[in-house]
Amino acid sequence: MAYRPRIRDVATLAGTSVSTVSNLLNGRPDRMRPETVQRIEEAIERLGYRPSWAARQLKTGFAPVIGLLVPSVSNPFHGAMARAVEVAAQARGFQVVLGNSLRDPARERQYAEDFFDFGIRGVIAGSSPFDLGHFSELMGRGLSMVAFDLVTTGEGGEPAMDSVSMDNRRAGYLATRHLIDLGHRRIGYVSGATPTMSRRDRLEGYGQALAEAGIPLEPELIAAGDAALGYDDTHAAEHGRAAAHNLLGLAAPPTGLIALNDMHAVGACAAVRDRGGAIPEDVSVVGIDDIPLAGLLYPALTTVHQPIEKLSEAAVDLLCKRIGGTDSGPVRHIVFDPHLVVRATTAAPEGRGRQRSLGRATTERSAG
Amino acid sequence: MAYRPRIRDVATLAGTSVSTVSNLLNGRPDRMRPETVQRIEEAIERLGYRPSWAARQLKTGFAPVIGLLVPSVSNPFHGAMARAVEVAAQARGFQVVLGNSLRDPARERQYAEDFFDFGIRGVIAGSSPFDLGHFSELMGRGLSMVAFDLVTTGEGGEPAMDSVSMDNRRAGYLATRHLIDLGHRRIGYVSGATPTMSRRDRLEGYGQALAEAGIPLEPELIAAGDAALGYDDTHAAEHGRAAAHNLLGLAAPPTGLIALNDMHAVGACAAVRDRGGAIPEDVSVVGIDDIPLAGLLYPALTTVHQPIEKLSEAAVDLLCKRIGGTDSGPVRHIVFDPHLVVRATTAAPEGRGRQRSLGRATTERSAG
Repeated sequence: MAYRPRIRDVATLAGTSVSTVSNLLNGRPDRMRPETVQRIEEAIERLGYRPSWAARQLKTGFAPVIGLLVPSVSNPFHGAMARAVEVAAQARGFQVVLGNSLRDPARERQYAEDFFDFGIRGVIAGSSPFDLGHFSELMGRGLSMVAFDLVTTGEGGEPAMDSVSMDNRRAGYLATRHLIDLGHRRIGYVSGATPTMSRRDRLEGYGQALAEAGIPLEPELIAAGDAALGYDDTHAAEHGRAAAHNLLGLAAPPTGLIALNDMHAVGACAAVRDRGGAIPEDVSVVGIDDIPLAGLLYPALTTVHQPIEKLSEAAVDLLCKRIGGTDSGPVRHIVFDPHLVVRATTAAPEGRGRQRSLGRATTERSAG
Repeated sequence: MAYRPRIRDVATLAGTSVSTVSNLLNGRPDRMRPETVQRIEEAIERLGYRPSWAARQLKTGFAPVIGLLVPSVSNPFHGAMARAVEVAAQARGFQVVLGNSLRDPARERQYAEDFFDFGIRGVIAGSSPFDLGHFSELMGRGLSMVAFDLVTTGEGGEPAMDSVSMDNRRAGYLATRHLIDLGHRRIGYVSGATPTMSRRDRLEGYGQALAEAGIPLEPELIAAGDAALGYDDTHAAEHGRAAAHNLLGLAAPPTGLIALNDMHAVGACAAVRDRGGAIPEDVSVVGIDDIPLAGLLYPALTTVHQPIEKLSEAAVDLLCKRIGGTDSGPVRHIVFDPHLVVRATTAAPEGRGRQRSLGRATTERSAG
C-alpha cells in the first residue's frame, strides 16, 4: 500500500497537537492564532494530506457531496440514473450518496435531514411524489434542491424548487400514438400502483393521443398492479404482469399495451406469454424509459427514450451552481423531449382474432 | 405539513442559545454545566425533537449509518443487494448510504474515508477486488468492515475482516454440471473483463465440473468482453454479448454457455439471437445470481440462485454487532450454498449441427 499522510503527520510538521489540527479541520479555529492556522494549512499542502469532506466543508461551507434520493435502485432505471448523476457530479468535484425513498415523504425528509446534518447542501429528489412541502423547512435552512422527473408548481406550500424532467405527457402520447398509427384501436394502459406526478402526466398523454384519434377512453382499459405484490418500484415487473393479466382477461381485451415504464413492460410481456400469446403478433407492448436492458430483451422492447444522461447532467449542473452560489436567479424548470425507439414488440394488430382466445396457461415457452 | 420541532424550539424551552444546543448535539459539551446539558436533553425529549445522525452519534459514538460499497448499482444485482441491505439495516435502526466503487481500490478507500469522516463506523464492501489492504488503515482507526461476495484471507497485509459470501466456486460448478448432465461437452465460459475473487472462484467451479466429467478445459472456450465497451459492471450485458460472439464465432463453437453473472447471460442470449440462433435449441445459456428479472426474461433464464436476502441479513447483522461492540470475537466467515434454478434457456444439445452454421445476422427477430 502506498504511503498516505495522516493527521498526525500534519500535526508533527506544523508543530501542533493532533487535536489542534482536528479542531481546524472540524471548523473550530476559534482561539487559534492565525500563524497556527497558516502552519497547519501549509503542512496539509506540503504533505498532500487528502482534504476530507470535513476539511473541504470548512473551506467552502458545504460538503462536496450531493445527496440523491431515488424511489428504489432495484429498478434498473434508477440504477442507471444514479450512475449518470455520479458521473456528472464527479466531473464537478462532488461525490454522491444515495438513499432509497420508496416515494415516502417521511423517508425523503429524514434522508434529506440526515444529509443536511452531514454538511450536504444539495439534494436531487428523483422520486416525484405529488407534494414536495416536506422539504420546505430544510430549504429554508439552506438546502438546495432539484426535483427530478417532475415540474414543481410552487403551489400549495410547495417550495420553489428547480426541476429537471422529461416531458412525461409527451412520452405517454408518443407511445400511444405509435400503436394508433399501427392500426390499434383498443389500447390498454398498465398504470402504477403508486400515483406520482410523472405517472399522471404519462397517463394524460395516453388520453390525449386517444382523444386526438377519436378513440373513447375506457376506464376498464387502465389497470394498476396489486399493492399486495409489494412496493411497485421494487417489484415493478410483477406489478406490470398482474396489471396486464387484468387487461388481457377482459371480455374484449386490448390488442396493444402501453406500460408506464419499461420494468412494468417487462412484466406485461411475461403476462402475454403466460397466456400463450406471442409478441407482437398477438399483443403489442410499448414501454417508457428505454432502460439499458431494453434493446437486449427478447423481443427487443419498443419504448420511449428518456435522455437520462442529459437529465442527470442538467440536474447536477443546476444543483452545483446553486450550492456554490454562482446561480441565485429565479427557479428554473428544464424539460427534455423524449423520442420513440421502435424495436420488436410492436406491430399491426393482425392477430386480434387469435388473441381474443388467449388462455390462462402459465408455463413459459422456450424461444423458437 | 405537520409541525416539527426545530433546534430553536429546543433552545427556547431549555432557556439556552441555539449555539449551545448545537454544541451539545455536535459533541462539544466541553464547558457546559451539567444542569444545562440536562435541560437541553429534557427539552429534546419533551418536544420529540428528532435525534439527528449527529445527535445519535453523540450518544453512541457512531452515526447510525452503514456505508455500502457496490461495484455499480446500474447492475440490477447490486441494486437488489442495496435494497436488501437497507431492509436489514433499518430493522436494526441503521440507515444506509451507498457508493459505486467501480471495483477501484482508490475509489473504495476514498469512499470509506469519507464515510468515516461522517462518523460512520461500519462499511460493507460488496465489490470484491482481490486485495483489501487499502482498508487496513481505516480499520486500524476503528472502522468495522464486512466483505461481501468474497472470503477474506488475511494474508499479505490484508486486514482481518468478517466476510459473507455465496460459495462462488460451487455456483460455477452447479451451472456447468447442469449443462454436462444435459449432454453438453463443449461448454463456453463468458468471463468478466475485471478479475475479482468471486469471479475467479466461479471460473474454478467451471473447471472443476469439467475435470470431474473428464472434459478437457480449453482456454479458447473462456472469453471475456472487451474493455473498450466500458466498465463491465455498468455495461455487463454488452460485455456478455461481445464475449459470447467470440465463443460462437469459433470454428468449433460451444453448444452451451455459462455466464459469470446474469447480466452477462442476458448479453450472451442476445449474441445467440444476433446470429440467428434459438435458445435453447441451438445454444443453452446459464447465468449466475438469479436477479429478480431472471424469471421474467424470455426465455426465462436458467441460473444459479444467490440468496441475496440471507447474505445481506448476515452481513448487516455481523456489522451491527461489531459496531455496537456486542461481538468482539474472532473474524467470522459466513458462506451460503447456492442452488440451481432450471428455467427455459437450457436443453440437451440437439441442435448442434444447425448451430455450427450460425451466421452473423445482427437484426433482432420478433418472438414467435
